[in-house]
Amino acid sequence: MNNPITRVGILGAASYAAGELMKLLYNHPNVEITVLVSETFKDEEVLKHHAFLRDVCGREFDHIPEDLCLDGVMDRCDVIFMSKPHKKFANGYMKQLRSADKKVIDLSGDYRLKNADLYPEYYDFSHEDPELLQKFVYGLPEIRREEIADAQFVANPGCYPTSAVLGLAPALEVGLVKNEGIVIDSISGASGAGKSPRADLMVIDLGDNIRTYGTGTHQHTPEIEQELSSISGSTVQVLFSPHVGGFKTGLSSTLYCPLTRKGITKKEVVDLYRTRYDDEPFVRVYEDRSPEIRDVVGTNFCDIGFIVDSRTNTLVVISTIDNTIKGAGGQAVQNFNLMCGYPEYTALPYEGVIKKRLVTY
Amino acid sequence: MNNPITRVGILGAASYAAGELMKLLYNHPNVEITVLVSETFKDEEVLKHHAFLRDVCGREFDHIPEDLCLDGVMDRCDVIFMSKPHKKFANGYMKQLRSADKKVIDLSGDYRLKNADLYPEYYDFSHEDPELLQKFVYGLPEIRREEIADAQFVANPGCYPTSAVLGLAPALEVGLVKNEGIVIDSISGASGAGKSPRADLMVIDLGDNIRTYGTGTHQHTPEIEQELSSISGSTVQVLFSPHVGGFKTGLSSTLYCPLTRKGITKKEVVDLYRTRYDDEPFVRVYEDRSPEIRDVVGTNFCDIGFIVDSRTNTLVVISTIDNTIKGAGGQAVQNFNLMCGYPEYTALPYEGVIKKRLVTY
Amino acid sequence: MNNPITRVGILGAASYAAGELMKLLYNHPNVEITVLVSETFKDEEVLKHHAFLRDVCGREFDHIPEDLCLDGVMDRCDVIFMSKPHKKFANGYMKQLRSADKKVIDLSGDYRLKNADLYPEYYDFSHEDPELLQKFVYGLPEIRREEIADAQFVANPGCYPTSAVLGLAPALEVGLVKNEGIVIDSISGASGAGKSPRADLMVIDLGDNIRTYGTGTHQHTPEIEQELSSISGSTVQVLFSPHVGGFKTGLSSTLYCPLTRKGITKKEVVDLYRTRYDDEPFVRVYEDRSPEIRDVVGTNFCDIGFIVDSRTNTLVVISTIDNTIKGAGGQAVQNFNLMCGYPEYTALPYEGVIKKRLVTY
Amino acid sequence: MNNPITRVGILGAASYAAGELMKLLYNHPNVEITVLVSETFKDEEVLKHHAFLRDVCGREFDHIPEDLCLDGVMDRCDVIFMSKPHKKFANGYMKQLRSADKKVIDLSGDYRLKNADLYPEYYDFSHEDPELLQKFVYGLPEIRREEIADAQFVANPGCYPTSAVLGLAPALEVGLVKNEGIVIDSISGASGAGKSPRADLMVIDLGDNIRTYGTGTHQHTPEIEQELSSISGSTVQVLFSPHVGGFKTGLSSTLYCPLTRKGITKKEVVDLYRTRYDDEPFVRVYEDRSPEIRDVVGTNFCDIGFIVDSRTNTLVVISTIDNTIKGAGGQAVQNFNLMCGYPEYTALPYEGVIKKRLVTY
Repeated sequence: MNNPITRVGILGAASYAAGELMKLLYNHPNVEITVLVSETFKDEEVLKHHAFLRDVCGREFDHIPEDLCLDGVMDRCDVIFMSKPHKKFANGYMKQLRSADKKVIDLSGDYRLKNADLYPEYYDFSHEDPELLQKFVYGLPEIRREEIADAQFVANPGCYPTSAVLGLAPALEVGLVKNEGIVIDSISGASGAGKSPRADLMVIDLGDNIRTYGTGTHQHTPEIEQELSSISGSTVQVLFSPHVGGFKTGLSSTLYCPLTRKGITKKEVVDLYRTRYDDEPFVRVYEDRSPEIRDVVGTNFCDIGFIVDSRTNTLVVISTIDNTIKGAGGQAVQNFNLMCGYPEYTALPYEGVIKKRLVTY
Repeated sequence: MNNPITRVGILGAASYAAGELMKLLYNHPNVEITVLVSETFKDEEVLKHHAFLRDVCGREFDHIPEDLCLDGVMDRCDVIFMSKPHKKFANGYMKQLRSADKKVIDLSGDYRLKNADLYPEYYDFSHEDPELLQKFVYGLPEIRREEIADAQFVANPGCYPTSAVLGLAPALEVGLVKNEGIVIDSISGASGAGKSPRADLMVIDLGDNIRTYGTGTHQHTPEIEQELSSISGSTVQVLFSPHVGGFKTGLSSTLYCPLTRKGITKKEVVDLYRTRYDDEPFVRVYEDRSPEIRDVVGTNFCDIGFIVDSRTNTLVVISTIDNTIKGAGGQAVQNFNLMCGYPEYTALPYEGVIKKRLVTY
Repeated sequence: MNNPITRVGILGAASYAAGELMKLLYNHPNVEITVLVSETFKDEEVLKHHAFLRDVCGREFDHIPEDLCLDGVMDRCDVIFMSKPHKKFANGYMKQLRSADKKVIDLSGDYRLKNADLYPEYYDFSHEDPELLQKFVYGLPEIRREEIADAQFVANPGCYPTSAVLGLAPALEVGLVKNEGIVIDSISGASGAGKSPRADLMVIDLGDNIRTYGTGTHQHTPEIEQELSSISGSTVQVLFSPHVGGFKTGLSSTLYCPLTRKGITKKEVVDLYRTRYDDEPFVRVYEDRSPEIRDVVGTNFCDIGFIVDSRTNTLVVISTIDNTIKGAGGQAVQNFNLMCGYPEYTALPYEGVIKKRLVTY
Repeated sequence: MNNPITRVGILGAASYAAGELMKLLYNHPNVEITVLVSETFKDEEVLKHHAFLRDVCGREFDHIPEDLCLDGVMDRCDVIFMSKPHKKFANGYMKQLRSADKKVIDLSGDYRLKNADLYPEYYDFSHEDPELLQKFVYGLPEIRREEIADAQFVANPGCYPTSAVLGLAPALEVGLVKNEGIVIDSISGASGAGKSPRADLMVIDLGDNIRTYGTGTHQHTPEIEQELSSISGSTVQVLFSPHVGGFKTGLSSTLYCPLTRKGITKKEVVDLYRTRYDDEPFVRVYEDRSPEIRDVVGTNFCDIGFIVDSRTNTLVVISTIDNTIKGAGGQAVQNFNLMCGYPEYTALPYEGVIKKRLVTY
């Protein structure tokens, strides 16, 4: 039986992603947050970095020793969430955690890819201990639920890959779409880039703007291809093209997929996805219209809709998430629940609604 | 002891405010929503009007008879939320509800004012049965908690009055500020006006815009003055000046109040407000800076900060809320909890955080 | 030699597009606006519909007879801009204008397509006199400058086609990209839908939102294919997928184009486009980065940038415009200038800058 | 007679305000921009800081010697615009310019106040040569047109003071409102804070937000009081309370002014303001409604509307401007035109419209 209380530590606790995670964990009935470490802001109040904690959490960030030894931290928690910038975790703390018996959920990209050779190209660093990559489970519950439940180490997926993989998995599983020629055109709100000051994320620059960036070179490209290839059973190649807009949260992906045969109807596609995601608490399949960012902001849902364009024999999938929830902190909590044996939706938005989904009024 | 399950009905269930209310009630562990009536959209699916109910609530709105008799509805629920446009409730359904033993929470302005003479001027209708005004309790829990707990009929406050009254109450209670010369300058997001199509609420018109409207004539003026006069013990007069901006949710009021004596310090003001609101789960008093809309969006908090301007001997109070939660649906649920004997914060955002407020980490 | 003053009439003068057009024409040194007709709002002040005209234009809209006879109008103007909804112009006023000797610039889609058979499918009406389609020149100056200069009737292009055709023309002209498998993913601000009240264009719905609509079925699909096929010399097929976001103005298209051969470099592409558009006053070719909506809002520029993705052998073109200027009113003025013999940039934003482009400081 | 070409230099040319100024000056038929100095970014391309100059201005910023000697600069221009941060101009370049015969327009606050004693309190520095303060004319053309026309040195007004002073001047001139008890509640877009990276100006923080700041202590307080006192003939005291919102441009001030006598009608107020501003090209007086930010964005107009609240005997004035144009660069150009003898509206938005204002259609 699961433990009624799990003690949780967050490293990199001053980050924006950590804040979104904390918003959920502070409402989790089975969680006690015992450790909040920030190396950068160690002498500052937690509240200063996460305004929502006003009147809740008056303390300062926890200190760790200069050699970054985690012994003191590990004594005080059962599960550790890592919210460090890329490279800082893999070539730092992980050395200590590899032999510890703590569960770890990493929100960075450090352990999402199985192929260590891709890190220098896409993340600009080399893994000092690449074997550890195989110890991490890619934490997309709708694809790897049992593996996650059994895992000690989970790599929490990126926001774009979450929308793309969930949007494409059912079609690739049954060979409905080709495994090349796929275009993934995504747009995300500004929260994807965190809260550190940058001229190109200011209201004066990004407000009312659309910016295309990282087309074909974004680090989420190999993450998407790895998972889709695993699902498909053969190599899948995509052209991933992200954009950022002048809004805070939400992410919409439009997935253009050449169909493998002619005459596919939208009904067939809807049925396929509904069957595949029937028991999923956080996937909603649309038949009537395309999902919009407003449908998912503030939720852990991934909403999926379709257009079958018979003229070009293309399946167009629209897949939307809240990038800060299903694309980051919410998915981390979903993984945490699976790893700790709590109901998967505990402390996630619309928890009560999800419990009542089967009830007919 | 309170009932573990309360059956709830919502009349005017297609409105924007009803939607915000439903988002909370569907997550309430003690609520069963049994009735959802829309006269206007009676043959349509609830989902069409509240997209967040996708995969949760597949049914259509409930019908009521042509004579709008509520007998069938009242059988099926213990508490009724009214979300009808002004006048529709007072001179319609209330005739049937007045002798029923159901608890009613009204989100309109129909029963907020005690003085029936003000309705023709500010709401453009006359009460057919003005005596009923005295049966309603003004549902601002921080001011009238016990009355609400005992009430059968509660008038849920307006969004602007919630921010204004909570921002001014402690100062008026002790005579710190004068009861005339008060200016209330507020700005609200577009959600305050609901979701019915209007040219002046379109992105092309209201996006990136600030519009001043209803200065000195807005229907919330007498509501604010009534409650402030009650708190002060003498007639309070205000100049209320609302604005609307091109954002969706949130409301910030800047309250300019002539001080009754010189030499007041900010520390005195902060202490006064902290003492007054010390046990309030949903009021946060700031000492370090002014609260911002981003601090309260998505929450049921009212955040309050201060500037003492000694040059003009004016107390400036900044009071912020989420107009759709503390300014509407959240406050309605807070009142519901009080009326039904549930913990006041049940099903409100940050419920877990509020429970943990006293715990020191 | 050109006429120092051209008398201009606008039909459909209460529309949003007409307003954007008027903003430019009122600053045109060679234009006298003599006629402003609105059938729908004929007894109202022009100012009420176009706030920028306050203190400039105090009069009401012009009346036309009940039989919509244009004789009185045509006497008073040399050039007529049509800003009527689709179908209203083609099967209405055009009957009278066809034999008149007035120049006409139509901002609707009524005469953009040469193939009359496409109108029932894409515009939901049939042309009563389809031969007239051949009398109109498609008004994209960078493609058909001489034809426009000689034209009596010009069909002003749609906003999406303007960005797509300018972004693809140089590559298709030389066969750099294939004429099938092209995906056009575009996002536009809310102004593209005009100013008539609609629930889905309200701040409460569209604010901070991204909505995918009309994928594969939007009426701009055949317009894009017609022009690209004409440029390419063979049939070009595209999958056009528009989105709308919660901002007012601006349009960004991401064009995914399979390359016809391997090994193409970005430099080759930039050189090709620079050579093609070298003398164009309103096209700017980027080498350093992708253009953004903020670069073009408030201007008549079409900005174009590139990514060559060698992994998938795809040319990705980013093409941005202000949908209300280069995508509507600005292009109409550019066409007007060409048709009347004025310098092409007269009265267009950055007119002074464009004149000085060749000056080296 | 005025010079057909005036050579212009801009110091601090990488700033946001300088960019807005350049947008106008590059379209000015009588201006040649000869000098663009940035000390901070001296080795960078001008284009990198002002994207709108792409394909117009390919050069780098001008260098000045390490001792910041302006001899070389002054040789090459007739008029200098200063766009340096506060203090940098007054205690730096002005030493060299004081004895030169160049015209100078300063966009900072360094020379707006006549009382040198206020600088340490409001600007955090002391003037090394306070006598120079008297040499500057406060550049609000509607108040000091002739002085400006004769001036060598002009201090361009702040954005908030422009809206406040124009909104109050007519009422104070005739003693309609009291000279104390005035509250100025203003809200501005994010552009007022420039484009340097700051966490609190990011989309993730300021998007959809309203922030109150500087109430009673903002440096524009003494500037407003100085000008209003000069207009009134006696000391005027105000409580100035600015806010910033999550939009890019525009500024709306709501001015609460106790009336000096009872029974004032709105018509009297409108007539007073219309008479006062009758010949002003850039002031528009509203009778029908309150002006909104959308009415003035992109223009050099100051729009003014009124509410007379007889209950509290208060005149409420709504005064809106584009903070980057009438509140900064546009007003600087207006001053430039006056100082150089060009028509006051030359190169300002709606120039053509303004010329046509008297024409009746």
